[in-house]
Formats: sequence, structure tokens, C-alpha cells
Amino acid sequence: MQIGMIGLGKMGYQLSLNLLDNQYQVIAHDTNHDAMKNISTDGAQTAATIEELVKNIAPPRTIWMMVPAGDATESVFTSLIASLDAGDRIIDGGNAHYKDSLRRSEISQEKELFYFDCGTSGGMEGARTGACTMVGGDPDEFKKIEPLFRDVTVENGYLYTGKTGSGHFLKMVHNGIEYGMMQAIAEGFDLLEKSPFDYDYEKVAKVWNNGSVIRSWLMELMENAFAKDPRLDDIKGVMNSSGEGKWTVETALDYEMAAPVITLSLMMRYRSQEDDTFTGKAVAALRNEFGGHAVTKR
Amino acid sequence: MQIGMIGLGKMGYQLSLNLLDNQYQVIAHDTNHDAMKNISTDGAQTAATIEELVKNIAPPRTIWMMVPAGDATESVFTSLIASLDAGDRIIDGGNAHYKDSLRRSEISQEKELFYFDCGTSGGMEGARTGACTMVGGDPDEFKKIEPLFRDVTVENGYLYTGKTGSGHFLKMVHNGIEYGMMQAIAEGFDLLEKSPFDYDYEKVAKVWNNGSVIRSWLMELMENAFAKDPRLDDIKGVMNSSGEGKWTVETALDYEMAAPVITLSLMMRYRSQEDDTFTGKAVAALRNEFGGHAVTKR
Repeated sequence: MQIGMIGLGKMGYQLSLNLLDNQYQVIAHDTNHDAMKNISTDGAQTAATIEELVKNIAPPRTIWMMVPAGDATESVFTSLIASLDAGDRIIDGGNAHYKDSLRRSEISQEKELFYFDCGTSGGMEGARTGACTMVGGDPDEFKKIEPLFRDVTVENGYLYTGKTGSGHFLKMVHNGIEYGMMQAIAEGFDLLEKSPFDYDYEKVAKVWNNGSVIRSWLMELMENAFAKDPRLDDIKGVMNSSGEGKWTVETALDYEMAAPVITLSLMMRYRSQEDDTFTGKAVAALRNEFGGHAVTKR
Repeated sequence: MQIGMIGLGKMGYQLSLNLLDNQYQVIAHDTNHDAMKNISTDGAQTAATIEELVKNIAPPRTIWMMVPAGDATESVFTSLIASLDAGDRIIDGGNAHYKDSLRRSEISQEKELFYFDCGTSGGMEGARTGACTMVGGDPDEFKKIEPLFRDVTVENGYLYTGKTGSGHFLKMVHNGIEYGMMQAIAEGFDLLEKSPFDYDYEKVAKVWNNGSVIRSWLMELMENAFAKDPRLDDIKGVMNSSGEGKWTVETALDYEMAAPVITLSLMMRYRSQEDDTFTGKAVAALRNEFGGHAVTKR
């Protein structure tokens, strides 16, 4: 089966290799020429433009988009809408906001295209050897491409989640949970670091991964990280984020529900990105005003 | 080898069976007569009192305490201190506060006893078939009883954590992380429940357990729970706690460090235990006072 793969970044490249391993004929496109050259060496056909990619695939086409959410996804989607024929399928495997996916699905329907919003988890390792996917879209059409998901995921690692939007929504919530779990794990190790005891964190993560209640893939990654850098001396504690945590919190606000742990996980990421804060200045100034408490001068 | 087991509750009973499987001679004591009768049927010797248990074991003795933290642990510990001989070993496998363990270790040292603070994780299933233990105490004496921990834990499931207190401290932090992870998972499913989509939560938990970043034993337990009760209709959302989360937050306060996720996980448990709150009344009253906003009458 032919698969058009648009986007050869960290995830898309690994997924292409995964597809090639599974005997798919991959026709790949990316604006990065090195990625194109490399995937060509690895056995994929390449197409210089999206239009060329579409021309090189026999209808009904299956196009997997694996590009960053936002402008990149919008741009690729717009090109696809202009090039594809009725009956073709677009799988958006990126982290698009589910409301954008709902809009793109409507546009696709007008062109008689099938749009699938596919949340993809498992990191680069998963994309390469067996990912986890959550897919929303037309149920009957899904059945036709179900073998594709079975092939590129681990056993029991794909789920048809229901109507359009449900795949990206589920992936968004997955990432929100991930934020909370990561922050909880991190606070735990911070407590160990400040304790009077002398723990070997790699060994701690390892014992916690063998039989404990908190055993998890994230704790295994923690074990790997401590194996490389026992006290994480080479890393500054700046926590970046790429949007899904923020969307999860925005969604909690849409529903007016309390989600304090996911919210605070996100806020602590923002806090970590500032060396100093205006909040801190304001509180220090107020303590000084009402109580004469000393401020730390810049 | 003979092991004295004091406490045949949820964890101690399963651990006794685990020890019996591993060819240990278990001499058990509990104030619960049914538990004593049952463990006797299962192959353990029983002792009506702690004094009798001590008399029935040849020195140097190894006594495993598996009783609730607080008064029960203190009472058993006091009896043991009065009965044991120099060179005997006490393993406290319960969830004692590490500062209590430091105190008990000092008392033990005065009597020339060896005290080990042993955090035990993995739940009842772990206690039965292979637990996870984190053990602090004398390093040389630990070597002598190390085979015991190897036998009752899963592979790589025990760690000598260092000086006294480090075992129970590590277990406390483990539980703090557990609180945060659980709350994050729960907030995620709450978002799904409020979403416009119609998810099968058992299937969601299952796909998240196969290849996703948040795969974990807790998510497996979530899958089991949803298999039994797809919308958790039979459970009221009251979240109890048994102390270790509170100790973790108190320890964060001792160190004056920010641990918002673990803290809020605990606070949300407290919130869940109140049907109505005085906080809610006070905020509603203030909104009414300054803005004439309607209050909900009792």
C-alpha cells in the first residue's frame, strides 16, 4: 500500500521508517532537503512538492501529515485540500487542537475527503518501533485503513475513538495527564535532593520501576536520564511546553471544572522560564511597604 | 530461616504467604483471631502474644512488623524492645514517619538491636507475589538479611537506601508522587467525562497502556476499575488518605520548597471529604455583600 508522508521531523521520519519496515511504499515530502535525502537512502520515494506527492500516489490516496500544530499544519492542509480528489484520506497525526480538527474535517467533507484526527504517543522510540494512536473520524472509512494503524502501533496500541475531534481531544488530555505525572515525579526527586539522605537516583528510579505503585514509562525515562547524568548537573531547570498542556487547561476552563494538578504543572513550567518574576518584585515591594521587610536588591 | 511476622492485615497476611512460598518458617502474631486461624491453615506457626512469638524464634531473630503507622506501630515496637535480645533485628515494613523511625532506631541501638525502616510498595498483589522494598539501616547487618528482601520482592525490587530513616523517607516520597500521578490521571478522565465525545474509558486506559507516554501500573489499575464499572457509578468521589501524602507536604514545608502538584493532590482529597465547605459559604457571602450576587440557600 502507498502512503504519502508529509513531515519528516522527529516523529514523521521515525514513522516513515516504521512504515517501510512494514512493507508500505512511502512517498515522502518535507521542506528539509537533508531529511528528504536521508529518507530516500532509507528506501522511500520523495516528492519535491505536495502536488508532486499527490500525483505520485494512486487514488484513493492515504496521506499522513506529521507536522507541527498551527501554521505548518494549516499550510500543508490547505495544499492538500487543493490537490486531493474525492475519496482520498487525510490522517493528521500531529498535535492539532481538536477544534481545528473539527474545522478541517468540515472543509474536508465539502471536498468529499475523509479526515482523521490521529493523536500519536510514545515518543520517537514509539514512532519507530510501535506507536500508540487515538483516531477519530468516519467509522466505516476507518475500517478500511485500520490495518495501517495496527501495523505501526504496538499490540493493542491503537483505538478508534469515535467522531471527528475525539482523537486529538484524547491526545490532548493524554498530554495533560503527562504534565501532571511528570511534575509529580519531579517534585518527588526534588524532595530527595533536599533531604538529609544520600540517594542514588538512578537506583531509586530503578527500584520504583520494579514492583512499586508508581512504576511507569516516565519513571523508566527518569532512570535513563539519571544513568547519563546522576544529578542532572548538565541541565538547567527550564521546562518548555508545546501547547497541549495549555489546551488541556483551557478546556478545563471551558467546562468550568477544577483541574488543579494539570493547571499547576503548566504554571510551574511557565514559572521555570522566567529567571526573575514581576510577581516576586510586587510581593517583595508590598512586604517592604507594610512591614519594612527587607527586599533583595537587583 | 525463621521470620516473626507481626501484623496480618492486608499487607502482612499476603507477605506471610509470600514468605511461606519462599520456604521461610513464619511465626505470626496478630490480635485478630480469624487472621491467626487462617494463616495457621496456610502453614504458619502462630503466637498468641509478642512475648510468645519472641520465645519461639531462635536468636538472632528477625522480626517483620507490618502494622499501621502510629499507635499500633508504637505499641508493637515497645513490646519488641522489652522482649528482644541484643543482636536481634526489627524490620518495620509499615508506613512509619521517617522521624519516628529515626527515634525508634536510637532506642533500638541502646538495646543493641538492629532497626531497619523498610518502605513497602506494590499493594496487596505485590506483597503476595513480589513486592518493592526500600530499606534503611545498618549496612553490614543489611547484607545478612539481604536474601530475605531478594526473596519477597520482584527482580530488582529492593534497594538498600542508606542510613536509618532513608527507607521510610523514600517510601513517603513515593507515596507523594503517587498522589500527584493519581490526581493527574483522574483530572484527565474528568475532562473526558465532560467532553462532547463518547469514550469507552476501559478502552482509553487500555490504549494508553500500550505504547503511550503515560503507560503505568496506575493506568492498568484504572483499566481494571473501568472494566468492573464503566462510569464508576457505584463509587462516590470521596478520596481518603492515610498520612504519607500529608507527611510529604509537611516535609516540603520543612524544606520551604514548592511542591504544588503533590500539595494540591492532597488538598483535593480533603476537599472531596466535605459535602459543603465553609470556604464556599464565605466566598458566596462576600460576593453577596459587595455585589449583591445571589447566594444558593441551604
